[in-house]
Amino acid sequence: MSGTIHGVGLGPGAADLLSVRADRLVRGARHVAYFRKAGRAGQARRIVDGMLRAEAIEYPMEYPVTTEIAFDSEAYNQALATFYDHWTERLAVLAQTEQVIVLCEGDPFFYGSFMHLHVRLQGRCAVEVVPGITGMTGCWHATGVPMTWGDDVLSVLMGTLDEAELARRMADADALAIMKTGRNLPKVRRALAAAGRLDDAWLVERGTMPGQRVARLAETDLADCPYFAIVLVHGRGRRPA
Amino acid sequence: MSGTIHGVGLGPGAADLLSVRADRLVRGARHVAYFRKAGRAGQARRIVDGMLRAEAIEYPMEYPVTTEIAFDSEAYNQALATFYDHWTERLAVLAQTEQVIVLCEGDPFFYGSFMHLHVRLQGRCAVEVVPGITGMTGCWHATGVPMTWGDDVLSVLMGTLDEAELARRMADADALAIMKTGRNLPKVRRALAAAGRLDDAWLVERGTMPGQRVARLAETDLADCPYFAIVLVHGRGRRPA
Repeated sequence: MSGTIHGVGLGPGAADLLSVRADRLVRGARHVAYFRKAGRAGQARRIVDGMLRAEAIEYPMEYPVTTEIAFDSEAYNQALATFYDHWTERLAVLAQTEQVIVLCEGDPFFYGSFMHLHVRLQGRCAVEVVPGITGMTGCWHATGVPMTWGDDVLSVLMGTLDEAELARRMADADALAIMKTGRNLPKVRRALAAAGRLDDAWLVERGTMPGQRVARLAETDLADCPYFAIVLVHGRGRRPA
Repeated sequence: MSGTIHGVGLGPGAADLLSVRADRLVRGARHVAYFRKAGRAGQARRIVDGMLRAEAIEYPMEYPVTTEIAFDSEAYNQALATFYDHWTERLAVLAQTEQVIVLCEGDPFFYGSFMHLHVRLQGRCAVEVVPGITGMTGCWHATGVPMTWGDDVLSVLMGTLDEAELARRMADADALAIMKTGRNLPKVRRALAAAGRLDDAWLVERGTMPGQRVARLAETDLADCPYFAIVLVHGRGRRPA
């Protein structure tokens, strides 16, 4: 009998924001894999605290490198490719006989590490993916303000982009979600100021989770920002008034 | 005792893609409101078929106009404002003593009609909003292909935008999600062709739902496209290989 690998979107962080489908898979799983930084509990694993069966076998997949070497270097590329190849092989072998779930923060197909397994697993075994509420959706709900109206254009940008390109794109869209902030936050802030959008920008950490923090970016201490904080600018488009 | 109005995100369509929180609210609700076109069952209502209590009282909120008059006319603006004012008043009065849920397709804060009630209800009664998986997320999962990688820029565009503006923005982003297609689809298609993106574009209808349809836009009969179909172009960004 052959198994399936399920990439399971866990949503933005709150345990009751898993989908009903994801909740069932997590609570029933025997083999549970997830990505994490070495030495950390891992955000995906933390979301399902208290939900796993006692006999579940866990497979923490620890990134070989994170920010120690440049993300556009060949060494970084090579280390990550080897890492994904290794876990693809290991999970594919396991899935010859077992059901395996891979825990994914947010949505698995939206800037997710699982995608690197997904492309490598094609043709190796059955793969199913469960959509999740994206982290940015959780963050815009944390602000309590609707995100996009009418014909608003939403741009999703990474803080890793070049400063001038960020500023140009920030000026060219109505609503903005900027991810991968962290050490890029001073650059993101300068780009927002250059685009005339800084006064409307919010910084959201741990959206929907305990310790959720929402602050105006202009009033935030930039030294104190986790990588997974998201910067948001709400759209203000057409609406009947 | 005073009640609360809950705007409940139902996700992209499949009943088991409601969040655990939304599922509990829907199954326990006594007062259930939802938007729909006059004479239609309504997509939000259809998602919860079989989930409501037998004694639930339903409040279909029927749009006074849809596409009969121009969406940028003063008459359209006035008719919709009156409609939202009316339902705000009615639900606020109900919520003085009762818990009320408003069913929302996708995510309530992402181009959602509920937002027009949400802004009007501020200061009137307690309002809680439950995030949902967006319709576009359900659609990109329907394609089976990851949506955004690495530093990809995602632009969310409405098919109602001007053709030249659409083409410019389509050429300027990596991944694209184009909503409000329907009668705008021929224009959307021409704009994609002008931007050199047509061959990578997918049309997704009823993503995650029975009758889901995924087709290459270039091969689609444009006469046969529902308003809620979404056009997607996947990003192909940086990835270790």
